[in-house]
Amino acid sequence: MPSIGIVAPQSMHFAPPLSLQSGATIADYTLVYETYGTLNAARSNAVLVCHALNASHHVAGTYVDASGKSDPKTLGWWDNMVGPGKPLDTDRFFVIGVNNLGSCFGSTGPMHVDAATGKPYGAGFPVVTVEDWVEAQARLADALGIAQFAAVMGGSLGGMQAMAWSMLYPDRLRHCIVVASTPKLSAQNIAFNDVARQAILTDPEYHGGDFYAHGVVPKNGLRVARMVGHITYLSDHDMAQKFGRDLRSGDYQFSYGVDFEIESYLRYQGDKFSEYFDANTYLLITKALDYFDPARAFAGDLTRAMASTRAQFLVVSFCTDWRFAPARSREIVQALVNNRRRVTYAEIDAPHGHDAFLLEDARYMKTMRAYYEHVWAELGADPAHSAHSVHPAPAVQTDLEARAA
Amino acid sequence: MPSIGIVAPQSMHFAPPLSLQSGATIADYTLVYETYGTLNAARSNAVLVCHALNASHHVAGTYVDASGKSDPKTLGWWDNMVGPGKPLDTDRFFVIGVNNLGSCFGSTGPMHVDAATGKPYGAGFPVVTVEDWVEAQARLADALGIAQFAAVMGGSLGGMQAMAWSMLYPDRLRHCIVVASTPKLSAQNIAFNDVARQAILTDPEYHGGDFYAHGVVPKNGLRVARMVGHITYLSDHDMAQKFGRDLRSGDYQFSYGVDFEIESYLRYQGDKFSEYFDANTYLLITKALDYFDPARAFAGDLTRAMASTRAQFLVVSFCTDWRFAPARSREIVQALVNNRRRVTYAEIDAPHGHDAFLLEDARYMKTMRAYYEHVWAELGADPAHSAHSVHPAPAVQTDLEARAA
Repeated sequence: MPSIGIVAPQSMHFAPPLSLQSGATIADYTLVYETYGTLNAARSNAVLVCHALNASHHVAGTYVDASGKSDPKTLGWWDNMVGPGKPLDTDRFFVIGVNNLGSCFGSTGPMHVDAATGKPYGAGFPVVTVEDWVEAQARLADALGIAQFAAVMGGSLGGMQAMAWSMLYPDRLRHCIVVASTPKLSAQNIAFNDVARQAILTDPEYHGGDFYAHGVVPKNGLRVARMVGHITYLSDHDMAQKFGRDLRSGDYQFSYGVDFEIESYLRYQGDKFSEYFDANTYLLITKALDYFDPARAFAGDLTRAMASTRAQFLVVSFCTDWRFAPARSREIVQALVNNRRRVTYAEIDAPHGHDAFLLEDARYMKTMRAYYEHVWAELGADPAHSAHSVHPAPAVQTDLEARAA
Repeated sequence: MPSIGIVAPQSMHFAPPLSLQSGATIADYTLVYETYGTLNAARSNAVLVCHALNASHHVAGTYVDASGKSDPKTLGWWDNMVGPGKPLDTDRFFVIGVNNLGSCFGSTGPMHVDAATGKPYGAGFPVVTVEDWVEAQARLADALGIAQFAAVMGGSLGGMQAMAWSMLYPDRLRHCIVVASTPKLSAQNIAFNDVARQAILTDPEYHGGDFYAHGVVPKNGLRVARMVGHITYLSDHDMAQKFGRDLRSGDYQFSYGVDFEIESYLRYQGDKFSEYFDANTYLLITKALDYFDPARAFAGDLTRAMASTRAQFLVVSFCTDWRFAPARSREIVQALVNNRRRVTYAEIDAPHGHDAFLLEDARYMKTMRAYYEHVWAELGADPAHSAHSVHPAPAVQTDLEARAA
């Protein structure tokens, strides 16, 4: 299926200060975003796609190279999901990808100059939360004239943003699509994030976050951070299938170079990442992950936390995802069922672990396509349709209930 | 139950060169070891306890402090298992703990001077394997006049040594006790080890392994290595129970200091480790783990690899151990059953993950005690008993068979 083709990022500046959950304020900021498809007259067909840790606003399509031709190496991170004829069909929907505050891909972040000091923010960039991102995104939606999204959608950390939208702005989305996500990180999830952060923070080239001024980058720390992260994105089984104990050179080297293919692969991933990702952004985003816990304000009760939601939900998890396992998604589904919200839950038996949400899988794509057909049919049937009202009908039976039965 | 009390290490020098699997040779070496209990006249009651990654010959008892009194902080790493009246009862058995070659706890290792250069071995210490360790241990057994052990026993990497003994010297052990181990590391296991190694190797204070000469230690690398390792030793569930999302100061700090108790715990473990463990030893031992794969010489067929064994086996795994999961132990059991060897298999429902093999658990301790009763009864019934002959009787039905049935 063809990609949407050549796309280009846009940006928007926001002058009013943004108050953050930490109590800090960002005086003004810029968000970089991309849009695909056409906003309809009713402004009812917009879908916001939220990105995860190392992704960006560049969801679909390609950029042009120096000679003005499409550069296939620049394909968007969810191009298999978003485009003409794809599950999220840009012939029907107006899709927005937005780069989050604190990122290193264009929106205001640690690499940018803090007007207050005249120097890059560095580690001084305020720690932002998932909810802060949603506030910033809501202003973009305001500016684009979108009062209500047909859907807000995301995988992993992106799914957290979709969840936060459903709780903070219940009337601004009709559907909430949460893929491979969790209502909060476990101790083990936090532990892995902290190992990554410690690798960066203790790299001498980090210079307390001020490495830009020193003309260096804490590559070693970033590299280790990415390596440990990457292990948690893949399933044990998939790693065994792809790499097993395959040796690079056919025999043990009895040295500390590369013996196993898996070492070569991980080091390559780490090297690549350390060349394009900003260390302060990495710290920042892992903190946003750690802090996300909407039930926290409700004494840990996710059902109460999600009582404010009005959207219909699609929740998707992957059997081999041990980072955010299906049990974590089932907590979300259970809280929604407890609130008598409409929720569809799919647990996909894909082998690729957490990364499955980014990959081709026939059952996964079919599920997403079917759900967007539903979103579209609803729009077509009643363009003025609103999901503001609580659905008094019993929730659709979910896999969770079927299992419990 | 009381500890065996005050103990003291001994050491033995071995002048004949040791040929290693890598093709390298160690000209001469010293092994540090401890013994508990008394070797009987028949020299038939000796049990060798093999250690894992960060342990040593100091299995049980305490050392004296400066004032000559028992120092409780120096309690041996398996004191709950080994001692008078303990599962491995030192009133019955003569127990030997031996520090492996390449360690940083006394036996010849990277911190020692290489006579050939007059400088510390550093990263130049040859990469040793589990099988090399067994060869070195066999020489110690020779020197102590022990032709055959009542049992060779170990957990994790120690279990690999016990397995290697059973294959390399089938006539030199009557029982082989393999706890929380695996016949080979998975790609994921290797990946975690390589992250740890990369953290050390890329620490500028590592100086290519020559950090002794620089008067520094690659603490940051060791610290991250230990943190990532430690996560794999604990179960997700146990971490959730012990730490969950508990906050150190009651609220989010919005900084990169400590927010969660799990961060504080892991950083503390990392700090402590980096103060006593040698970086070159860490590299070396993780390589020994990665390389262990007895089936490799038999086209991956573990049954053929274990056909040389003559010992009776006890294999123990822990349900929540995701580092070396029960499925890995069942591979060992299956290979033994295929060879019609006597094997007892216990899968313990303990919550503590891989670390469970070092911890108190009533069912685990009962299993170990019962097995050593069996070892002891056999010794008493027939001191001249030998397990050299193949057991033609059907193997004891194992849990594995029961599950398969």
